[in-house]
Amino acid sequence: MLVLSSPSGAGKSTLARDLLAKDEAITMSVSVTTREPREAEVDGKDYYFISQQQFAKMRDAGELLEWAEVFGNSYATPRGPVEAALAEGRDVLFDIDWQGTQQLVEAMAEDLVRVFILPPSAEELSQRLINRAQDSATVVAKRMAEAANEISHWAEYEYVIINDDLERAKSALAAILTAERLKRKRRTGLSEFTRKLVQKL
Amino acid sequence: MLVLSSPSGAGKSTLARDLLAKDEAITMSVSVTTREPREAEVDGKDYYFISQQQFAKMRDAGELLEWAEVFGNSYATPRGPVEAALAEGRDVLFDIDWQGTQQLVEAMAEDLVRVFILPPSAEELSQRLINRAQDSATVVAKRMAEAANEISHWAEYEYVIINDDLERAKSALAAILTAERLKRKRRTGLSEFTRKLVQKL
Repeated sequence: MLVLSSPSGAGKSTLARDLLAKDEAITMSVSVTTREPREAEVDGKDYYFISQQQFAKMRDAGELLEWAEVFGNSYATPRGPVEAALAEGRDVLFDIDWQGTQQLVEAMAEDLVRVFILPPSAEELSQRLINRAQDSATVVAKRMAEAANEISHWAEYEYVIINDDLERAKSALAAILTAERLKRKRRTGLSEFTRKLVQKL
Repeated sequence: MLVLSSPSGAGKSTLARDLLAKDEAITMSVSVTTREPREAEVDGKDYYFISQQQFAKMRDAGELLEWAEVFGNSYATPRGPVEAALAEGRDVLFDIDWQGTQQLVEAMAEDLVRVFILPPSAEELSQRLINRAQDSATVVAKRMAEAANEISHWAEYEYVIINDDLERAKSALAAILTAERLKRKRRTGLSEFTRKLVQKL
């Protein structure tokens, strides 16, 4: 389970898309949300767009691994697809904020890798938020405050990538996934493999 | 500090050389040894070849971070070059066995990354040991027993690479180094960087 967090505008979605395209063994965890779809967003791919009633029902049934409210909208990670992917031996990528990460740590503590993406500078981040044409000035101001709040939680993550060069940031993220998969604690079957090696020598 | 261990014949030296060639920020820790130089080995590059008297003197003066005896010869890591490289902010690569690794963990516990290289099979490892023309049959038999013993310590390492494809093993090792450098705990300066980001937003 690989968690990516960052303030919005730091390039997290681009990095996530790149990783998913390059690596067939990892699946995106698609969140549910009660907010309206933005232009170009696809139901079931970017989010599952659901009603407040559906949200409340899933939450009460224990079907959500984590949830958060941002600007009056609810966001959550449905449990079913994550457990199904893990059971198939697939890795799962999460695009969630610091609150979601804390809840996920509590829900599935054992095997979580947390990566925080930082923008190269405040100026660059502000510019990217302003350039998102669909947001009003009020929303931009809110998003900047939210970004500052999100950044303040960077130290709760194991890895930090500064996205000052997109290609380098992509390689960095791929390297983290490669390295984490090489960790002894995740290498089931090595006891058997090495036992046989030692026997035959 | 990056420690590479493996049975001899598993390709560790090739992997270490590749990493040193690709990455300018890492320096090899050159061991001292009391054994005779093999053909093509260069004093000060492969090893510092020293006498038993010199070895004893360095050990008694606390100048050795770890030492071991293998087939009657002594091997050790001199402290000076390691501390000098670390003080310059450079990473240091160690090619040492499980005994050396245990001692190094005790001597410099804080910041050690341990990688174990495994051969793809016992047959392949035996063949590589036999092909080393300079060794006698007795030495080959000893090396196989030693290899089995070394392999039995694989679980003391954080990362395990099976060297079944050299290019893939090279990438794996490079990814581990990249990922470890991205770990929050090693990113001095990030507190200041993020504090300023938050302030400006």
